[in-house]
Amino acid sequence: MQTNEREFRQAQRFLTEHDNFLVVAHVQPDGDAVSSTLAVGWLLSCLGKKYVMVNEGPIPKRMEYLWEADKIVNLSSAPLEAAYSHIICVDCADFRRTGKSSQYFAENAEILNIDHHPTNDGYGTCNLIVPHAAATVEILFDLIAFMDLNLDKDAATLIYTGLLTDTGGFRYSNTTPKVMATASKLLEYGVDGPGLSELLLEQMTLPQLRLLTRALNGLQISEDGKISWVSVNDEDLRVTGAIHEDLEGIVNYPRNIQGVEVGLLFKVISENAVKVSMRSAGKVDVARVAQSFGGGGHVRAAGARIEGTLEEIVPQVLDRVKLQL
Amino acid sequence: MQTNEREFRQAQRFLTEHDNFLVVAHVQPDGDAVSSTLAVGWLLSCLGKKYVMVNEGPIPKRMEYLWEADKIVNLSSAPLEAAYSHIICVDCADFRRTGKSSQYFAENAEILNIDHHPTNDGYGTCNLIVPHAAATVEILFDLIAFMDLNLDKDAATLIYTGLLTDTGGFRYSNTTPKVMATASKLLEYGVDGPGLSELLLEQMTLPQLRLLTRALNGLQISEDGKISWVSVNDEDLRVTGAIHEDLEGIVNYPRNIQGVEVGLLFKVISENAVKVSMRSAGKVDVARVAQSFGGGGHVRAAGARIEGTLEEIVPQVLDRVKLQL
Repeated sequence: MQTNEREFRQAQRFLTEHDNFLVVAHVQPDGDAVSSTLAVGWLLSCLGKKYVMVNEGPIPKRMEYLWEADKIVNLSSAPLEAAYSHIICVDCADFRRTGKSSQYFAENAEILNIDHHPTNDGYGTCNLIVPHAAATVEILFDLIAFMDLNLDKDAATLIYTGLLTDTGGFRYSNTTPKVMATASKLLEYGVDGPGLSELLLEQMTLPQLRLLTRALNGLQISEDGKISWVSVNDEDLRVTGAIHEDLEGIVNYPRNIQGVEVGLLFKVISENAVKVSMRSAGKVDVARVAQSFGGGGHVRAAGARIEGTLEEIVPQVLDRVKLQL
Repeated sequence: MQTNEREFRQAQRFLTEHDNFLVVAHVQPDGDAVSSTLAVGWLLSCLGKKYVMVNEGPIPKRMEYLWEADKIVNLSSAPLEAAYSHIICVDCADFRRTGKSSQYFAENAEILNIDHHPTNDGYGTCNLIVPHAAATVEILFDLIAFMDLNLDKDAATLIYTGLLTDTGGFRYSNTTPKVMATASKLLEYGVDGPGLSELLLEQMTLPQLRLLTRALNGLQISEDGKISWVSVNDEDLRVTGAIHEDLEGIVNYPRNIQGVEVGLLFKVISENAVKVSMRSAGKVDVARVAQSFGGGGHVRAAGARIEGTLEEIVPQVLDRVKLQL
């Protein structure tokens, strides 16, 4: 923390000097976004401050167990009455990620920008950006300690939730020694780590499992065994009763086959458009493949929306992946 | 460690006072058994001792990356020439778990019994049993520290492997603060935690995934949504090219459906016998159900071999589970 001491001190000043805050995370919030929103709320409540937590849309159902999760205002169904002058943005790599929440930022509002994305452009009035943190909650854990506040089980559960989801259950490459040491400390507060893992990482709804099964029935693999893919269309969603977010995770199945370098999920989105999600075992830079189709992403996880039918697009994508192998 | 100091001291004496050891883990070794065998070998090599590591059968292919994994003698294909007077048993809850390895225990051999199973009956001459340890490697980590030996990346990788597999990737209820703190220290030695997670917990062979898909196609769920089951027969294994150990993990899919209390896997083993694996979300004690069929296990994971056809056995098992709901 030593290297960031100035940023931590500025963040502390921002939080203590003002009295009424709007707390905002990115649209379509994931575990870290929801947990970070609530952890800031928890911190502000410790300081006796007034605050409102918002998001452009609803938070995922399976996170409703979190401390004061029901207090996050879903702006799409409950607009606010006034704009705020002091904003705390969490886990938003750029300003646009706040979505419609920004409608409630007063003109010249001061923004505290707390984030772990290396691409964060420092859009805040005050920026606390820690690119080597695995999750925004990791920064908040340090901020809580920096401010000498006493963590409790509720807050520890928030931090654990963000760590768990942003590291894929302590499996991604951002799982540092510090992440594991932090998790250890959080468990000491009585966090139900195994219960959270089950709820957030293992549980599936029946429609979700039916959708996965349907996708796996059509799994294909290239002759050399290095590319594997599945495809899903709206009929699959309809028949199984699954929803769009149930698609998440399916691409890991082709990707996790022994010997496979690139796993692909093709989602037909209209008669003439397909969304492709790409996952790499490390050798192939799928961001380059995605970029060649006008998409983007990271070395190991990328995606693109491509015009055309599934029959046209699959061989095109396979060809571009093969070029990188 | 304080409470076990006497046991640790006795184990240390056993290891330092003798010179030639046979190191043995349980039959059909899992990640903790293989890693513990090798970690004891690593420790003995630090002490400059002679030792042979054995198992009744082969070690799982995906653990061949481990330090000196190729040195574990598979007794089913390479018998030893002599019996040993000093034995180190790891991860064996009782003597029989050593299987055919015990053929090479000299009469009156002295045994150091290192294990974390609460049911361990203390069959050793010297016993180092730590029931609250998540894995036997956790005890070995402490023993290495107790003996003031310097861990290196190879040994740290062994310990991490055992922790990872015995806690289901830090998800089971044995994931204590100490487990996470130990994992943190191990990562400091340069262990590739994410790579190990991928290899040991996420990767599947193509036949294994085909088998899973085939099983999921037949997934059923009770009307109240509380029991879900799949079944597999030899034809499924043959058609997909899968092997018996590929069955592992399939039962978690019915079990992980939201709302399901008990997940079941029925494996037809002959015309007149079925093996059933049972997993509980916590409310139902499946060990009791298994016992009522002459099987056994734990509250949340149990199994039984039952005489009869699949058509006869499925309704019987469902009825007994319903009695517990």
